[in-house]
Amino acid sequence: MDIPKTTNALVKSSGTGLEFRENVNIPSVGERDVKLKILSASICGSDLHIYNNDSVFRDRVLEGQIVGHEFCGEVIEVGSQVKTVAVGDIVAAESHVSCGSCYYCLNGMSHICQEVSALGFDRPGGFAQYTVIPVENAIVLPPTIHPDIGACLEPFGNAVYTARRVDLVNKVVWVIGCGPQGLMSIAVAKAAGARTVIATEAKQERIDLANAILDAHHRTERDMVINPIEDPDTLKKIYKATNGLGVDVIIEMSGQPKAIEDALLALKKRGHLVALGLSSSSKFEIDWNKGIVLKEAHIIGIYGRLLYETWTEVIHFLTTGKIDLSSTLYPRQFALSEYKEAFDLVLNGKVAKVIFKPNDL
Amino acid sequence: MDIPKTTNALVKSSGTGLEFRENVNIPSVGERDVKLKILSASICGSDLHIYNNDSVFRDRVLEGQIVGHEFCGEVIEVGSQVKTVAVGDIVAAESHVSCGSCYYCLNGMSHICQEVSALGFDRPGGFAQYTVIPVENAIVLPPTIHPDIGACLEPFGNAVYTARRVDLVNKVVWVIGCGPQGLMSIAVAKAAGARTVIATEAKQERIDLANAILDAHHRTERDMVINPIEDPDTLKKIYKATNGLGVDVIIEMSGQPKAIEDALLALKKRGHLVALGLSSSSKFEIDWNKGIVLKEAHIIGIYGRLLYETWTEVIHFLTTGKIDLSSTLYPRQFALSEYKEAFDLVLNGKVAKVIFKPNDL
Amino acid sequence: MDIPKTTNALVKSSGTGLEFRENVNIPSVGERDVKLKILSASICGSDLHIYNNDSVFRDRVLEGQIVGHEFCGEVIEVGSQVKTVAVGDIVAAESHVSCGSCYYCLNGMSHICQEVSALGFDRPGGFAQYTVIPVENAIVLPPTIHPDIGACLEPFGNAVYTARRVDLVNKVVWVIGCGPQGLMSIAVAKAAGARTVIATEAKQERIDLANAILDAHHRTERDMVINPIEDPDTLKKIYKATNGLGVDVIIEMSGQPKAIEDALLALKKRGHLVALGLSSSSKFEIDWNKGIVLKEAHIIGIYGRLLYETWTEVIHFLTTGKIDLSSTLYPRQFALSEYKEAFDLVLNGKVAKVIFKPNDL
Amino acid sequence: MDIPKTTNALVKSSGTGLEFRENVNIPSVGERDVKLKILSASICGSDLHIYNNDSVFRDRVLEGQIVGHEFCGEVIEVGSQVKTVAVGDIVAAESHVSCGSCYYCLNGMSHICQEVSALGFDRPGGFAQYTVIPVENAIVLPPTIHPDIGACLEPFGNAVYTARRVDLVNKVVWVIGCGPQGLMSIAVAKAAGARTVIATEAKQERIDLANAILDAHHRTERDMVINPIEDPDTLKKIYKATNGLGVDVIIEMSGQPKAIEDALLALKKRGHLVALGLSSSSKFEIDWNKGIVLKEAHIIGIYGRLLYETWTEVIHFLTTGKIDLSSTLYPRQFALSEYKEAFDLVLNGKVAKVIFKPNDL
Repeated sequence: MDIPKTTNALVKSSGTGLEFRENVNIPSVGERDVKLKILSASICGSDLHIYNNDSVFRDRVLEGQIVGHEFCGEVIEVGSQVKTVAVGDIVAAESHVSCGSCYYCLNGMSHICQEVSALGFDRPGGFAQYTVIPVENAIVLPPTIHPDIGACLEPFGNAVYTARRVDLVNKVVWVIGCGPQGLMSIAVAKAAGARTVIATEAKQERIDLANAILDAHHRTERDMVINPIEDPDTLKKIYKATNGLGVDVIIEMSGQPKAIEDALLALKKRGHLVALGLSSSSKFEIDWNKGIVLKEAHIIGIYGRLLYETWTEVIHFLTTGKIDLSSTLYPRQFALSEYKEAFDLVLNGKVAKVIFKPNDL
Repeated sequence: MDIPKTTNALVKSSGTGLEFRENVNIPSVGERDVKLKILSASICGSDLHIYNNDSVFRDRVLEGQIVGHEFCGEVIEVGSQVKTVAVGDIVAAESHVSCGSCYYCLNGMSHICQEVSALGFDRPGGFAQYTVIPVENAIVLPPTIHPDIGACLEPFGNAVYTARRVDLVNKVVWVIGCGPQGLMSIAVAKAAGARTVIATEAKQERIDLANAILDAHHRTERDMVINPIEDPDTLKKIYKATNGLGVDVIIEMSGQPKAIEDALLALKKRGHLVALGLSSSSKFEIDWNKGIVLKEAHIIGIYGRLLYETWTEVIHFLTTGKIDLSSTLYPRQFALSEYKEAFDLVLNGKVAKVIFKPNDL
Repeated sequence: MDIPKTTNALVKSSGTGLEFRENVNIPSVGERDVKLKILSASICGSDLHIYNNDSVFRDRVLEGQIVGHEFCGEVIEVGSQVKTVAVGDIVAAESHVSCGSCYYCLNGMSHICQEVSALGFDRPGGFAQYTVIPVENAIVLPPTIHPDIGACLEPFGNAVYTARRVDLVNKVVWVIGCGPQGLMSIAVAKAAGARTVIATEAKQERIDLANAILDAHHRTERDMVINPIEDPDTLKKIYKATNGLGVDVIIEMSGQPKAIEDALLALKKRGHLVALGLSSSSKFEIDWNKGIVLKEAHIIGIYGRLLYETWTEVIHFLTTGKIDLSSTLYPRQFALSEYKEAFDLVLNGKVAKVIFKPNDL
Repeated sequence: MDIPKTTNALVKSSGTGLEFRENVNIPSVGERDVKLKILSASICGSDLHIYNNDSVFRDRVLEGQIVGHEFCGEVIEVGSQVKTVAVGDIVAAESHVSCGSCYYCLNGMSHICQEVSALGFDRPGGFAQYTVIPVENAIVLPPTIHPDIGACLEPFGNAVYTARRVDLVNKVVWVIGCGPQGLMSIAVAKAAGARTVIATEAKQERIDLANAILDAHHRTERDMVINPIEDPDTLKKIYKATNGLGVDVIIEMSGQPKAIEDALLALKKRGHLVALGLSSSSKFEIDWNKGIVLKEAHIIGIYGRLLYETWTEVIHFLTTGKIDLSSTLYPRQFALSEYKEAFDLVLNGKVAKVIFKPNDL
């Protein structure tokens, strides 16, 4: 096969929305880069912000940029200094490209690099037939992981990193919010030894998915999914499930002020709340005395996932069969050119994930 | 000496205020109890609430209860099962009497015992010539610790427990609020290896004390005390002292919403905020996204001090000379009967600590 | 029922062996004690040393002492200060009675109390119809735990404490030695999220039990039991199961010098070896440079179990069904008077556990 | 100044010893490399092995290789991708060049990289006027650190990493062996809050240096240096300094079997022994039961230093003045051509460190 120099791709339009464009140039392959044929790519929540031209990314993602940062591909070319990845390998992409030289990179925290650039934001992404990424960002997958799952490993990594900040063995865990990362953290909590997992979510489609993921991961009698909008006894039920002591660990994926307020009250003394969910209101009230100080709460913010410790865990969870994402994400597949339909489906919250098949459809 | 059966004491009045009463009965000495002759006792912030008959303790501290929970005494009688404390020992009192049987006591967290009772609140306290406490609550002091300091070890323990929740070696530490516990945590931070200690406080008397405690504990050029009300560049100065990265560790002793809001912004990525200070407003707004999630902040609530790990550290810090409280607390001494003057002095914030000498004055 | 004052019991003879004795006096019930009717009791390895009058306990266990420290009973009387245990409760015994006042007790490490006394060694034990123990040593069991399992919870606690010293999620774990504690730690490792569990053992009966316990706890393809005496490729297989990196965590239950030597070589860089097994030779050679320093090994000694954090985990593991001991311990039941047969069975290593039923048989 | 293309250097001879050679070619500067003018370089223990042609490095260090891996220089040229280091910067060298792609590099442990190469071993080193190193290996020093100290920061980093594996605040620390790394770890232990530091060493010159370093770092009455060969009460004194409980933390820098055997006995229950020292005998006996298992010892092997967290600490310790190496290392300066005299001085153990000044002498 001749190695292609151009690609079909979804690129940022000048205003709202994306554009399907043909024959876009593919970047050249540097010494430590790999070129990928994209097998599967997935739409992330931040892609919706780009799609809607929301202010958060408006000035950052330039017109014409190839978007998409959750993807999986086959290596078709490697740079001269690449030793750990070979042509033919199937790899998932880590979208954060860290600088390697800043304070955080040099001190074991490259996931919060001060000079980070991101695939699909600041560099060409993966809603394309082909793309080029640094070798460190190409995580080799074993053959047992389907490319459609491979395209969902970045949000799965977020769930893994979040849930694994705290020892969960024998703990009662409350997952707040069952978007993709919340759903996946339910599975992680079960695989990491949680005693009971309680999930809360208001949308029925997501409640169904949460029940499905519990069913697929050694559900016990005490595990449950509750709709806190409809069930006025939500807190009472959660409290009861903990023998009245309060929840050991809360995994906060919703960013909802009311949920966080409740969570801090339901948290056990010395319990942990790990927070990945961003709030649309950002500033809101919490009860500092009762929710944090007097109960000796631990609150831990989470950003993305570790480069690359989290990926090691991601692969172990999947290859041992401890976590099975296939049965629960129900991904639907689309061609790149069908992007409007795909984005609409995610925007109205009907599915956990949709998948682009840039070379197959 | 005949062992006395009654004592002069300060007891709760029926309404606001205390009452100096003579010939109050001393409780009998149980199997695992010790009787103390009080050498020094100190007024705590919560004593002010009792004195003012504030709602927080109004129903808990009964009329006639001997108050006072920060004290130091000489053992004059021991129960039949007491083996580790002897007549003649000088001991500081730990005021929290834990039950030994609840979930928290059985799981290494007896400082947050669910059935705790407290000296000077639920049981007779130490504003008296004599009192009786459980042997576990009698911490034997070496002779190098003066009884007036011995009476201040419970708040010092709080400062030690708070500051020592996080590794401080080579860290930039910001202490918010320079009441007694804030002042003492400045000394702990320095003794525990902090690189730079910055303290903020609005009252001039406390600013002076903070400077004195820094001077007594290997002050460096970068250590500083700032009045955030008067100095509009407070945050800028703090940020500069951290090479622009933000503060590694914040020790929150103020409970001030504005200070906590600023603190979360000035906190370094992955930094720690340990919070002992209670807020008078309790509920207030914080910036969840920027202050916690995106920067991967750790927030840790603190309640009291560990039973009894903290006491081990308290004694080591003092006996090695790493921390010298004597030069900075400026305690003034009073007779029990002079209690109005003593309380007035503390109520108007003029001193860090005042000391009762129930048997000497 | 009249509460009995005497009991049938197994007591230490003047020389080797035990003696079945009737009408032995039961100690009186102190303020914080409970009297038990023993439902089940189990023989521990240290009971064999007492039985054989080995030097290790010869001077400690006095002639006439009621032995046995692994037992479970029904509460038939409680002291006046007992609040958390009630008549009718089924409880397991924690055999270590800590002093509450020594350095270790006061610093959160009461399991290594310097003044510890032990049921069945220094105080009357549980090979009897009735006994008396302190309330803190009576762990209330939920009704779902069978008394025969209840009698095995102390060694299970040792396994839980040992295996849970290190995060096992996604780790490759090597359990060395499949006596009761080794067997039980296989189950703990699986329940705590281990990726792969490899067990080594030379006795066929124990190999069978190890396979049975793996089968009962979500065995995967890579989990395996190896006889290292017969299989010269043992280390090669272990190494292969770790992708050539070495074992993440080793749980050392054997005390065998050769096994420990091999273990340190097979350990991954920065791996952990947690060691509960005592060696009959005590002193032996290890390769300090290669086995510890250059690979940055962590070696952690383990003594008993935590008072009482481990018991909380013990009960959670069992009540959630994550661990099922019933299918794998195959306990055989005996009357106290049949003690010779029972001890013989354990001495020749034919079973994991035998159970006395002092009131039923 | 024209940037030089050749250098005077010490290179490995074909057999034992080194050779002073002129006009050796300097490697070219790659994209992410920097060229240094060497200001100071220091002789390490492993340089002695190279000098003696000992088997340990005989096949690894090739004839003609420029040796020396502890050095400090001024940046005189930077590669095209270098952004964090500028011409004129003074930098210390980290000698370990990690691959960035192996399991350990990708999982936050690049200091134990499986494909590591080392300056002065596998690549040209720093006993030269000029050399070229990767930018990540060039640690920018503040102007307050003298280049002679800058040349000693790699062994200082080892001491920092070793001593800082364990919380030392209020701990009794025993440093075994007072070679350069032992001496420097005394200073680190004091700066990190140790309660008491006890050092043992047999050579008088090193005992003097150990006393000097204690004197320079807030020595207390209980700090002491003991010659264990001459003082039969060494263990008794150490034990007494710990109130009979045993040593909290042991920093093992000697690799001496007898010292390690004693250390494990003197270690407190639950104490930590961190081991950097390699043993010439490698295999030796330890008391597994008493030294590790029954006392719940933690033993932690140490290899080198963290890339690059340790360097951050190194610079903080020095720039705050918490640690002052200048007064205690007594470095003597030599020209490269005087290498025989310099090596002789180190070989007979008369000094802690000697310094080459390749451009000044």
